Parts: sequence; C-alpha cells; structure tokens
Amino acid sequence: MYVKDYLNVPAEAAGSDGLSARWVINATQGATNFAMCIYELQPGKTTPFHQHDHEHEFFVFEGKGQVTTPEGVVEISPGSAIFISSGEQHQFSNLGDSLLRMVGVMSFAPIPPK
Amino acid sequence: MYVKDYLNVPAEAAGSDGLSARWVINATQGATNFAMCIYELQPGKTTPFHQHDHEHEFFVFEGKGQVTTPEGVVEISPGSAIFISSGEQHQFSNLGDSLLRMVGVMSFAPIPPK
Repeated sequence: MYVKDYLNVPAEAAGSDGLSARWVINATQGATNFAMCIYELQPGKTTPFHQHDHEHEFFVFEGKGQVTTPEGVVEISPGSAIFISSGEQHQFSNLGDSLLRMVGVMSFAPIPPK
Repeated sequence: MYVKDYLNVPAEAAGSDGLSARWVINATQGATNFAMCIYELQPGKTTPFHQHDHEHEFFVFEGKGQVTTPEGVVEISPGSAIFISSGEQHQFSNLGDSLLRMVGVMSFAPIPPK
C-alpha cells in the first residue's frame, strides 16, 4: 500500500509553459503497468497541440477549460473524464481564473513516464 | 477523443454492499491498456478485505475514509493517491457523512474490468 496527498509530491515542469505534473504513482511506488500524475495548468495557458504513442486518461477535479483534438473542441470541468487514444493529437487550455487540475494516467509502454 | 461527465454514466453495483462504480473509460471508449471508473461508497460502509491480480490506482476527490491492508490503516481524504499492488489484500471504509468518491484505475490484464 502506498498513500500520499498529491500536494506533498513536488510539482515538476511538464514540458509546456504553465504546466506542471506531480507524479503520485509510478514505478518507484511499485506500479508495473501505468502511472498517475496530477497535472496543473495555470490560468490562461494552453499546451501545445501534440501527440504520442501512449494512451491518456484524465479526470478533472478543479478548474475549467477545454480539450481540443482534430475532432473539435470540448469544454471540461470538475467531473469530466477524458480519453485520448494512441497517436491522437490533443491540446488542453485553462479558461478559468484558477488552476486546472486533472488526474492523468498513462501506460508505461511504449513511452515510460518521466 | 472521448469526454463525459461521470455523473452521466450509470452507477452499477460493484459487488459490495453500498459500493457502486461508474465505468467512465473502458474498452468501449477505445482504451486498450487500462480502465477508469468512479467508485462511490456509501457512508458507514466497508468493502470486504479482498485481493486480486490486477493493480489498483485510486485518487480520492470527495469524502473521507480509510484504507486497510496487512500493513495497517491509513486515513484518506480528497487529494489522496493510493496504490495497491497485485495480490495485496485491501479494504476501503467510508468514515464520513457523505459519499466517498474515488477515481479508480485498473489494468485490463490479467483480469478484464466488468
């Protein structure tokens, strides 16, 4: 068993202006299949339109924003579950006045989490 | 892309008195590695002390309670990230006056999610 409040895990720069990640569950905690982090996106910030081989699953628990893919734009808010498939281009934007906070889960393979 | 508010996904009985699950991301949505559900445990309820082969990752976003394993008992509240390894016995209890709500993620293999 491993239990930790995400606010006690350091926020690391996550490769995009205004975006950080707190890696709450990873190989260090014994996970062998997938990792969990808490993403925090600053107000007014948008991540690059990007893609990668690993699937993403998200759950928004604070703030509001939108996710953009080639399919279109969808608003997200606390309670939104989001699935991004392998290779699908995607972009997140924070449209609120506070942090957009999301649980992010991704497979270890084929790209291990940082 | 798939986006859905978990409250728009039906709550299904999850094999324990007072416990339900809303399967927000699963093979139906294109996921190939792991699934996500929202677990809701009623006040005063406790899940059986049980184990299974698949790893669990949880994130608490409402309510308060505790998780018990052979290692001991740890309190959980909004912000708690929890990792239960393969084969580890575990049990959740709701110690509050409202639903204990957690994001639950589990590998498809070796036991597919219901």
